[in-house]
Amino acid sequence: MTTFPLPPGATIGVLGGGQLGRMLAMAAARLGFDTAILTPEAESPAARVAAHTIVAAYEDPAALQALASLAQVITFEFENVPAAALAELERLGATVAPGTRALAVAQDRLEEKSFLNAAGIATVGFAAVDTEADLRGAFQRFGPPLLLKTRQGGYDGKGQAWAHRATEAPAALAALGHRPAIAETPADFRREVALIAARGRDGEIALYPLTESHHENGILRRTSAPATGTPRLFAEAEKIAATLLVALDYVGVLGVEMFERDDGRLLVNEFAPRVHNTGHWTLDGCEVDQFEQHIRAIAGWPLGPTAATCHVEMTNLLGGEAGGWARLAREPETRLWLYGKREAEAGRKMGHVNRLSPLHRSV
Amino acid sequence: MTTFPLPPGATIGVLGGGQLGRMLAMAAARLGFDTAILTPEAESPAARVAAHTIVAAYEDPAALQALASLAQVITFEFENVPAAALAELERLGATVAPGTRALAVAQDRLEEKSFLNAAGIATVGFAAVDTEADLRGAFQRFGPPLLLKTRQGGYDGKGQAWAHRATEAPAALAALGHRPAIAETPADFRREVALIAARGRDGEIALYPLTESHHENGILRRTSAPATGTPRLFAEAEKIAATLLVALDYVGVLGVEMFERDDGRLLVNEFAPRVHNTGHWTLDGCEVDQFEQHIRAIAGWPLGPTAATCHVEMTNLLGGEAGGWARLAREPETRLWLYGKREAEAGRKMGHVNRLSPLHRSV
Repeated sequence: MTTFPLPPGATIGVLGGGQLGRMLAMAAARLGFDTAILTPEAESPAARVAAHTIVAAYEDPAALQALASLAQVITFEFENVPAAALAELERLGATVAPGTRALAVAQDRLEEKSFLNAAGIATVGFAAVDTEADLRGAFQRFGPPLLLKTRQGGYDGKGQAWAHRATEAPAALAALGHRPAIAETPADFRREVALIAARGRDGEIALYPLTESHHENGILRRTSAPATGTPRLFAEAEKIAATLLVALDYVGVLGVEMFERDDGRLLVNEFAPRVHNTGHWTLDGCEVDQFEQHIRAIAGWPLGPTAATCHVEMTNLLGGEAGGWARLAREPETRLWLYGKREAEAGRKMGHVNRLSPLHRSV
Repeated sequence: MTTFPLPPGATIGVLGGGQLGRMLAMAAARLGFDTAILTPEAESPAARVAAHTIVAAYEDPAALQALASLAQVITFEFENVPAAALAELERLGATVAPGTRALAVAQDRLEEKSFLNAAGIATVGFAAVDTEADLRGAFQRFGPPLLLKTRQGGYDGKGQAWAHRATEAPAALAALGHRPAIAETPADFRREVALIAARGRDGEIALYPLTESHHENGILRRTSAPATGTPRLFAEAEKIAATLLVALDYVGVLGVEMFERDDGRLLVNEFAPRVHNTGHWTLDGCEVDQFEQHIRAIAGWPLGPTAATCHVEMTNLLGGEAGGWARLAREPETRLWLYGKREAEAGRKMGHVNRLSPLHRSV
């Protein structure tokens, strides 16, 4: 078994080779760690800044064995990694953080919302929908409209469909490929907010300032950080995040996405058991960014300070937008982060910019 | 030939695999570039964060050919890389920055000081010393004591010896292995200062704030940034740096180390045609750090802003000092940078810390 704190020179394993793995590897390197990436992608963003890369399916037993041999602690950069892969790593004696419990809860929208409610955290109304009868029942219970989401595998707005009346039930279920789903009531929110939270191996908790999220077509477009708001709002968001960290016995960084309703109450939309797009602003706007914070947490190091050092407008560069790099590089207030992806498909996250301005006190 | 600005996705070649190459590779990755490292070291700090590594001697023709094929622009992380290697890369059609001229001047202390004086930049008095007769002549001209330095190959105080009287000439020359040397007069300085300067492909110049250097045993121990000082001092340092950049027709980041004399005048001690230890504070204390600035410059991008965002005390972690990581990780004002070196030999630069505090206006 690994003993903590993990000394520099140790290797951190990451399941997933995307931009989150890339930025985790860069943060790990700052602290003197090597990174080993396991990804099915032949040429991944993370592999290009990591000491070791294993290209294989996540469930490949030999690949998991190799990763477990290389790495003293293993984490993941996205929550759709197969639970079986983590279970196999744990069977091999590897230390995985955050654990299988957090992953299992986050992988299933029904489990996730049930878990949140059981922890005393409010969500929109929801119901399991496996059949047309289930969906009709949900309409009877909540009334229209309902947002249908697959229980597993959706991200960036994929695997979602609105149903405005019971007669649309067959079409809505077909749109989701008849996969197990949940129906959610509309959130009726005035804005979306998010909070990046971290918990160390000793239970220490560190919370970043609340931020405001702007989505387009189900994809995060922009984060404004720190968010304006009342002390009461901030306190409620922090209480939610801390409750969640403790309820999950969590180790690492976690992103919580919330709806702020017109009455000021917060509903949790979802959480991600990993570093999160709504925390990219911390790379240039916080004392210790979310990536280093995650490495610190899973390595059993003390957590770093989370105060904002400036105001940041984070904007994702989607698809061809990263082609504007020459113009963006000329903006003095703009820090550019590009992920090294080769194919700029429409809507694909190719990079982001953090635009900095002096910090103003929030209302 | 490479056309500029270099688009993200291109590969930047670096001769040298140490911590400067490592931090250059990390900066390049932020901007979407891949890095290819050429180093004779089997397990180097830079290789662990680079997309490509070629382990070979710097003069190895096949290795240079491979690097020239991989990289659209090639730079170096230390000035003792053989000039023949750069000449071969240029013969192969590779674009090298900064150029062979800056490297040749910086590699030879006699050339360097002669070049500085010819550009109107003051230095200590100096004389070429190849023989005992040369050294006796230098004593006659300048009087004792004299600091003897090998013309080539010295760094971190290596290849240096004091000679206090003419009778010590044989011993002093023996201490330097009878290599071609120069004799320097004492600088009589009240403090050492340094400035990181950058010049783009279009001649644009960006200068970082002046910093104060503290050496121990010939090795940089600490940088205090920005330095206190008068507007006149800052203006003089900036004029020196800009003059040097133009005189060398320089592209990239350059570090200038200066003596501030009791009368307030500045003498240039030496310059390094590369990112420099006295600029490590910029990683956490400037809008764009020296590593990204160097990548921007050699890639033909616009230069980034260089203003300080906070006060930084940079302290090198030498030899066993990096073993204090657990304590350092607990300091909230401290950002830790570890280089991933395996052997903590005495005096070896294993990492550094940047301790941040609010910016105070300089006197």
